[in-house]
Amino acid sequence: MVKVGIVGGTGYTGVELLRILAVHPEVSVRCITSRSEAGVPVADMYSNLRGHYDLAFSEPDAGVLADCDLVFFATPHGVAMRMVPDLIAAGVRVVDLSADFRLKDLDVWANWYGMPHESPEWAEKAVYGLPEVVRDEIRGAQLVANPGCYPTAVQLGFLPLLEHGLVDPARLIADAKSGASGAGRQGSIGMLHGEIGESFKAYGASGHRHLPEIRQGLANAAGGKVGVTFVPHLIPMIRGIEATLYAELKDPADFDRLQALFEERYEAEPFVDVMPFGSHPETRSVRGANQCRMALHRQEQSNIVIVTSVIDNLVKGAAGQAVQNMNIMFGLKETMGLDAPALLP
Amino acid sequence: MVKVGIVGGTGYTGVELLRILAVHPEVSVRCITSRSEAGVPVADMYSNLRGHYDLAFSEPDAGVLADCDLVFFATPHGVAMRMVPDLIAAGVRVVDLSADFRLKDLDVWANWYGMPHESPEWAEKAVYGLPEVVRDEIRGAQLVANPGCYPTAVQLGFLPLLEHGLVDPARLIADAKSGASGAGRQGSIGMLHGEIGESFKAYGASGHRHLPEIRQGLANAAGGKVGVTFVPHLIPMIRGIEATLYAELKDPADFDRLQALFEERYEAEPFVDVMPFGSHPETRSVRGANQCRMALHRQEQSNIVIVTSVIDNLVKGAAGQAVQNMNIMFGLKETMGLDAPALLP
Amino acid sequence: MVKVGIVGGTGYTGVELLRILAVHPEVSVRCITSRSEAGVPVADMYSNLRGHYDLAFSEPDAGVLADCDLVFFATPHGVAMRMVPDLIAAGVRVVDLSADFRLKDLDVWANWYGMPHESPEWAEKAVYGLPEVVRDEIRGAQLVANPGCYPTAVQLGFLPLLEHGLVDPARLIADAKSGASGAGRQGSIGMLHGEIGESFKAYGASGHRHLPEIRQGLANAAGGKVGVTFVPHLIPMIRGIEATLYAELKDPADFDRLQALFEERYEAEPFVDVMPFGSHPETRSVRGANQCRMALHRQEQSNIVIVTSVIDNLVKGAAGQAVQNMNIMFGLKETMGLDAPALLP
Amino acid sequence: MVKVGIVGGTGYTGVELLRILAVHPEVSVRCITSRSEAGVPVADMYSNLRGHYDLAFSEPDAGVLADCDLVFFATPHGVAMRMVPDLIAAGVRVVDLSADFRLKDLDVWANWYGMPHESPEWAEKAVYGLPEVVRDEIRGAQLVANPGCYPTAVQLGFLPLLEHGLVDPARLIADAKSGASGAGRQGSIGMLHGEIGESFKAYGASGHRHLPEIRQGLANAAGGKVGVTFVPHLIPMIRGIEATLYAELKDPADFDRLQALFEERYEAEPFVDVMPFGSHPETRSVRGANQCRMALHRQEQSNIVIVTSVIDNLVKGAAGQAVQNMNIMFGLKETMGLDAPALLP
Repeated sequence: MVKVGIVGGTGYTGVELLRILAVHPEVSVRCITSRSEAGVPVADMYSNLRGHYDLAFSEPDAGVLADCDLVFFATPHGVAMRMVPDLIAAGVRVVDLSADFRLKDLDVWANWYGMPHESPEWAEKAVYGLPEVVRDEIRGAQLVANPGCYPTAVQLGFLPLLEHGLVDPARLIADAKSGASGAGRQGSIGMLHGEIGESFKAYGASGHRHLPEIRQGLANAAGGKVGVTFVPHLIPMIRGIEATLYAELKDPADFDRLQALFEERYEAEPFVDVMPFGSHPETRSVRGANQCRMALHRQEQSNIVIVTSVIDNLVKGAAGQAVQNMNIMFGLKETMGLDAPALLP
Repeated sequence: MVKVGIVGGTGYTGVELLRILAVHPEVSVRCITSRSEAGVPVADMYSNLRGHYDLAFSEPDAGVLADCDLVFFATPHGVAMRMVPDLIAAGVRVVDLSADFRLKDLDVWANWYGMPHESPEWAEKAVYGLPEVVRDEIRGAQLVANPGCYPTAVQLGFLPLLEHGLVDPARLIADAKSGASGAGRQGSIGMLHGEIGESFKAYGASGHRHLPEIRQGLANAAGGKVGVTFVPHLIPMIRGIEATLYAELKDPADFDRLQALFEERYEAEPFVDVMPFGSHPETRSVRGANQCRMALHRQEQSNIVIVTSVIDNLVKGAAGQAVQNMNIMFGLKETMGLDAPALLP
Repeated sequence: MVKVGIVGGTGYTGVELLRILAVHPEVSVRCITSRSEAGVPVADMYSNLRGHYDLAFSEPDAGVLADCDLVFFATPHGVAMRMVPDLIAAGVRVVDLSADFRLKDLDVWANWYGMPHESPEWAEKAVYGLPEVVRDEIRGAQLVANPGCYPTAVQLGFLPLLEHGLVDPARLIADAKSGASGAGRQGSIGMLHGEIGESFKAYGASGHRHLPEIRQGLANAAGGKVGVTFVPHLIPMIRGIEATLYAELKDPADFDRLQALFEERYEAEPFVDVMPFGSHPETRSVRGANQCRMALHRQEQSNIVIVTSVIDNLVKGAAGQAVQNMNIMFGLKETMGLDAPALLP
Repeated sequence: MVKVGIVGGTGYTGVELLRILAVHPEVSVRCITSRSEAGVPVADMYSNLRGHYDLAFSEPDAGVLADCDLVFFATPHGVAMRMVPDLIAAGVRVVDLSADFRLKDLDVWANWYGMPHESPEWAEKAVYGLPEVVRDEIRGAQLVANPGCYPTAVQLGFLPLLEHGLVDPARLIADAKSGASGAGRQGSIGMLHGEIGESFKAYGASGHRHLPEIRQGLANAAGGKVGVTFVPHLIPMIRGIEATLYAELKDPADFDRLQALFEERYEAEPFVDVMPFGSHPETRSVRGANQCRMALHRQEQSNIVIVTSVIDNLVKGAAGQAVQNMNIMFGLKETMGLDAPALLP
């Protein structure tokens, strides 16, 4: 049994970790911390957990955390970078679901997150945990930076194109859309049902924190600088991200081999599903499931490759991918606890 | 392994059975029939099942069905009553999710369903499968009539009151609300997103097919005739039923012991959760889960007991309860395959 | 032209007043106050008003308000009762959309609103502005207490039954459901899209502030004490209230004349629509419109009259009714500015 | 008074025309035809129209239609092209909301709509009714082809860029999203609430009928061939289109003058609102209103111009624009009947 701690568990990522871990056969959740809710049973805050957990939120306690095999951070940015070094020193492995260790360029990090980075050493050592790219490094990692939700959907969709150098890396466009749970569980007017129900809009169109993360990941895949435009949008629903990706094929003749190339790239991946050419993946097909589904499209008179990619932002985009990373780190079956079909309808 | 067949699997109840059974460790789904979709892989129709089933829909084949241990009927009314007798004769046990075997009074049945009943013998023998009431009879049943969605939520909420004779049985009111999946997956204008999104209404207020089923169940609990008013409503969402129940306490002094009485009644039930007095169960707390959550309420200057009860209409109101019944029938752990927490948010 | 001021205009009731008044031919909006947003153009906060108003929110200014013919209060409770007496003394007439002047029993008011009432004199003089009941008093009123949203839907549905003494006044049940805009525009976690989307629940089932208001109104209609149970519910949508009302007919023979009686009662009412017996009014049929639509229902073997009643909580349940009251008070055509059809779909 | 007829009025476009015309001071609706619903009062089908129309649907009658000043076609494609020539011969003017007369290249039309065009003469003479482009031609037109919903949002957003030749016309990308009402009111399984609620997906990614219409309009603006990629998506809501447009600026220095250029271009347009640079127009800000709101965005290290553009697909994308065209054709004030603010929230 892997002894697990969760720091900062009152948000949607925290409850989703608990939901997934409730049926994971090799995990024992030892503690879940929240300063504001210390003492409150998790099942009182999240009634879906009634009957599944006796656990209550607790003040973060260094001793209890140090006794865990693995600690998940489901905190706002700025928290993990302060706590992680000591935990690792105590022999604990960490999967950080926040943004603290995702970027390698700490000037860029500081610029987007508005504070200096306090753990440059671990920012460098952290493994950016997209298993489809660096599974082997994750296996031995002490610290895994769990990818952001948009970056997961966008990178998985672009990867095969960039890895094979088939498209112009300077002209990548990612038009992405997310359900409201991506904004977390903060009491802000802007995320009220009355404000976002029955409406649709772009946001962060002049720049969003996930842009540098996407840029870094795509540059790694392309083996060089990329030019990427990323516009996120807010969908009046709770879970799900859809990313429609546009790239310019260098040689239109390559259209014919794209499908095979994508299928090959992800053939061995349990959590990436390349659908038939021209399919339209729906976010509901991955609701609650640790899956990315994608499909390729081509329009007449055009050399633009279109990739549509969907994930559940709270699962493959957060808690599910974190558990996948944990499974890899601890030598468990990668799909353990993650094999239930999505909830449809 | 229980060899399972599903007749009529293209609707929401069918896909929900497949979703649940995909992770059931003791079930092997042998066939799923659909005349209209014969030959179509189930995963082509329901993309959440991609990677989980190789199975395709097939024409109903008596031989294949007869080779199953259990057949679920997820058909419109009028189908099961014609096919069930032969299947049982062949030694197959049946859980019928349709309305065919729910009512004991076949005149009432014929009146509400617009056709004569064609299997009076099995209508009599069928066990009405509400495990919280007749678990022992289900164990040995050859044919289980799986309760309707509204009747499940309403009966579970009223049962303790009626079994103890605490309320006026002539004055029961059940104001119930359901998500759109309860209407099934038919291409009707009335159930378009454009018609029911962002709107709320009652329907069937002058009489709904679930009324006689509710009346029958409550009469059994009360040990005599009951007067019940039942008004269903349509909620602009997909899954979930909430029933707000009103009953007049004979002796207001009984208010003080109601909570204990409800907790006791359902103490041993794995799928009924009595929440603290005055709680407000939400449908999302049971989304995708085989649970009924309920709570009691009292208003000042009033001797009306209010019970609020929620289920997922496709799970505890249909496919989940059917699997629960199967587990009981085959001596499996009753919670097998049904123990994942609800999907929240 | 009626010179109008609005106190507390940043909430949904405020923007709805502005939306309606934008096309009212006899109104000139002079000021709209908000301490927190003073200086912000209303069209910056509510983009639907771009091109319709140059006005900015302003600090409340006694002089400016005193120069208005009419001031609407769209404030939380506790504000109007402090400001109204001076305004009236200055010759301004007032329509208060808050709860301050709705209850005549100030002990009850203090109990439900958690503070002593500070203007008992005007609480007594205020006219409870349900035009269908007291149109003539509204005409000359200096202060109109605009009814609450639930109380409007519930009272209009019960009125004909109680006025004619046809039902048992001790056994009234109002099961009401509201969209999320009824909770206002406060940044609370409980009203996030992520919390209330795709879910349904009762709230305030043990007692809600609108209960005493409903009780007072129904008692007036019945000419004596009534027993009413009121349970509100939250619908995952933005606008609309549906109330399903249950009452026990003293003489079942009266069923035959109910429809005619309702039609007669509301024949001259421009904003109450009695639909054919057995219809199911939808909230979308009144979205954005100052309408209440209702229908009667009867179930077999029952002497319960069922009334289903729908309004838009922000229009007939708030801003629209307030404008209707203003029209009456200033001798304008009652339907002025209120005659556009609802937005459907 | 303009005597108006509507052919094919049972769909969402039909009811929206009726909603708008109900408060238009210079229009008298003489007939609304529907073969399938002949005899049914429009207010029976659309309860928001109760009290606004006595009219019933009628069989199309050449005499009655010929007596109108203007006939709107709200029919599926293929109907108007057969009926329009005779009507025009009878002196009636026509606004066709279907696709029949939108494309000038009839081979392209035949290819996308799967039938030969039956009125090439009028296809040539028809004015493509985007008032912001060809207002003067509309004034005298006998036949106006009302633009499609997506093409309206996309063209208005790209126009200033193309008219000034500022962007590479070969690299235009339009990622567009629509609410479900855009699919009309057909009883198809794919548009059930249970199918599209709480989910998001692209559709027609390999080619959609609005693509050639967009291409034609943009080519006219650019004065030459354009390369445009257009991917529509389905939003789980009812009304509203958002289009996020991407174009490559030839000279990045032009970024500085874009905002002024857009504001100038639309300064005199009553129904196009250029919001401040970097704003995020929401579809709810135009719900029910004949408005297009748009904003410009720029991301660091990029020479991509991003335009976000929103309309209500049933209003500026259909019925509202049709009424705007009618106003222009009949010398009425262009905003007549179209000046109410959007319904927000």
